Amino acid sequence: KVGLFYSFTVMVRCAGITIYYCATLVLKLWCIHFLFPIYVHNPHLDALKDDILYHFSLGTGSHNLPAMFGDVKFVCVGGSPWRMKSFTEFIAAELAMEDPKSEYPNICAGTDRYAMYKVGPVLSVSHGMGIPSIAIMLHELIKLLHHAHCTDVTIIRIGTSGGIGLEPGTVVVTKQSVDATFQPKFEQVILGKTVVRSTDLDQSLAQELLQCSKRLNQFETVIGNTMCTLDFYEGQARLDGAFCSYTEADKQEYLLKAKEAEVCNIEMESSVFAAMCKLSGLRAAVVCVTLLDRLKGDQLSSSHEVLNNYQLRPQKLVGSYIKQSLAFFLYNTQNTSYL
Amino acid sequence: KVGLFYSFTVMVRCAGITIYYCATLVLKLWCIHFLFPIYVHNPHLDALKDDILYHFSLGTGSHNLPAMFGDVKFVCVGGSPWRMKSFTEFIAAELAMEDPKSEYPNICAGTDRYAMYKVGPVLSVSHGMGIPSIAIMLHELIKLLHHAHCTDVTIIRIGTSGGIGLEPGTVVVTKQSVDATFQPKFEQVILGKTVVRSTDLDQSLAQELLQCSKRLNQFETVIGNTMCTLDFYEGQARLDGAFCSYTEADKQEYLLKAKEAEVCNIEMESSVFAAMCKLSGLRAAVVCVTLLDRLKGDQLSSSHEVLNNYQLRPQKLVGSYIKQSLAFFLYNTQNTSYL
Repeated sequence: KVGLFYSFTVMVRCAGITIYYCATLVLKLWCIHFLFPIYVHNPHLDALKDDILYHFSLGTGSHNLPAMFGDVKFVCVGGSPWRMKSFTEFIAAELAMEDPKSEYPNICAGTDRYAMYKVGPVLSVSHGMGIPSIAIMLHELIKLLHHAHCTDVTIIRIGTSGGIGLEPGTVVVTKQSVDATFQPKFEQVILGKTVVRSTDLDQSLAQELLQCSKRLNQFETVIGNTMCTLDFYEGQARLDGAFCSYTEADKQEYLLKAKEAEVCNIEMESSVFAAMCKLSGLRAAVVCVTLLDRLKGDQLSSSHEVLNNYQLRPQKLVGSYIKQSLAFFLYNTQNTSYL
Repeated sequence: KVGLFYSFTVMVRCAGITIYYCATLVLKLWCIHFLFPIYVHNPHLDALKDDILYHFSLGTGSHNLPAMFGDVKFVCVGGSPWRMKSFTEFIAAELAMEDPKSEYPNICAGTDRYAMYKVGPVLSVSHGMGIPSIAIMLHELIKLLHHAHCTDVTIIRIGTSGGIGLEPGTVVVTKQSVDATFQPKFEQVILGKTVVRSTDLDQSLAQELLQCSKRLNQFETVIGNTMCTLDFYEGQARLDGAFCSYTEADKQEYLLKAKEAEVCNIEMESSVFAAMCKLSGLRAAVVCVTLLDRLKGDQLSSSHEVLNNYQLRPQKLVGSYIKQSLAFFLYNTQNTSYL
């Protein structure tokens, strides 16, 4: 009887331990899936001892990514490193976090491929020009956010573009990113084969940005489709490139067809940005100012002062949106330093 | 009779003036066509009062381009602005034109899109990452060379790449640039339609560079095909991106197929570089060092010192080639400052 009782006790203990481990495993998986959304979709990453984010000059072995980036809630990306630095200074002032002594160090100072700055929960990263350049940045940014266990991240591209039938200086919040044939898709070549990906963006975020601009009431903002091309000159029907085999009439016909497809502006990064953000579960928006009306010309002949003023508009809109969002989230907390 | 003689004299004079103007016009056209090869193929450019090279922050109205660039004979382009600055310092020393007091000012200091440096007849320009980024730069560079009336220009891309079955550090001179399906073509989208362009490079220049490397005898150099992709991660069968839907075996199979198609290395700019240089009549070559063997891995885990040493190799080879070429051209001149 003693033996039986002993066996029973051991079995109960084993069962208890098993239940305990199963429960912690389930809890861990729940945490990973719901509290820490999986931004990456790559089973091979687990096998890496260290993950080197080469184009950022960062890595899991060399940097404590959760400590450096764990609090990130907003990521703003744009082509020019200068513009992303100036956005950092602007957002620091907006959130009352500016430090007159600080120079806002470039976190990616070990490379000249991209520049990265951080102020509180806002990360600002440059991505260069064109789909391949922003795609490299996004692969490494998504891995960075994953390694840093970031949650509930909103990402917004602030950029410049050519408008179609809009007054220069108008800000366009992208409804859908379309390709050069006005289709809402991005073609990714994998192992030599083309895979089509959706370019859907977060519609509620786009509407929130539009409302925010209405409250700001400083410049015209519209919602419309954005055409994303692989080339700035021939790819956008410009007449001022080194090569041009079409007429002014051909150009006008193409741009008017784009306008019929509700294309408001043309730029060079939105399609892969939308596709990769959708795949990774990031809430994403594209906010670009139009520097000229492409129906009226091709060359950026406005003064530097005017163009610089236009380029500040997406920064102002997104800065205002971030300030408002943080005020909402931090309403009941003591941390008012962002407000 | 006096009246007739007078009329005859006037006719002779008129005929003389007409012949004179026709002759100078023919001479001018001959000069433009043969001495100043037309690098651009765009009839609309003549209608522009000023041509603004926006991404260089230069223009025909604001800068004296023939005075600034008329003597350019070699253009070296590469992704990183830092690398192109260091190449400028290197070539200045090679050509005995270094000025210890000079900081080699960035000619495109008014923008952060590209960086440009000049030493004697050598122009060094950065182009960022990917086909769209280098294409914008090349459109404006070709127009710049055209406006500056440059002749006999050789252009060489010096870059980094992933090797296939080569020892890391090997330099590859591109025989032909191929796409992700190993075809020697570049697809340019114009007015929403795809136009296929040839990616032929100058074979004699490639052979001259190979011979030059043999004489230099400092590192292994090979001639082979270069695969040009639109993406660094999924587009190059990497297993370490944010997304990966294929296995290690799939990756190996794809890379071995590339090897069978005589692909020695993979990078992201050569196809549009080759296509645009061929269209514009520029003698062009691509010289890239391999930073790793992609059959053995994906991550750039070599030390910064080793990688920096590798990145100097294309600079050394091209520097040596330029020095040798200038020595040949300037053999009978008094201008030996380049030698």
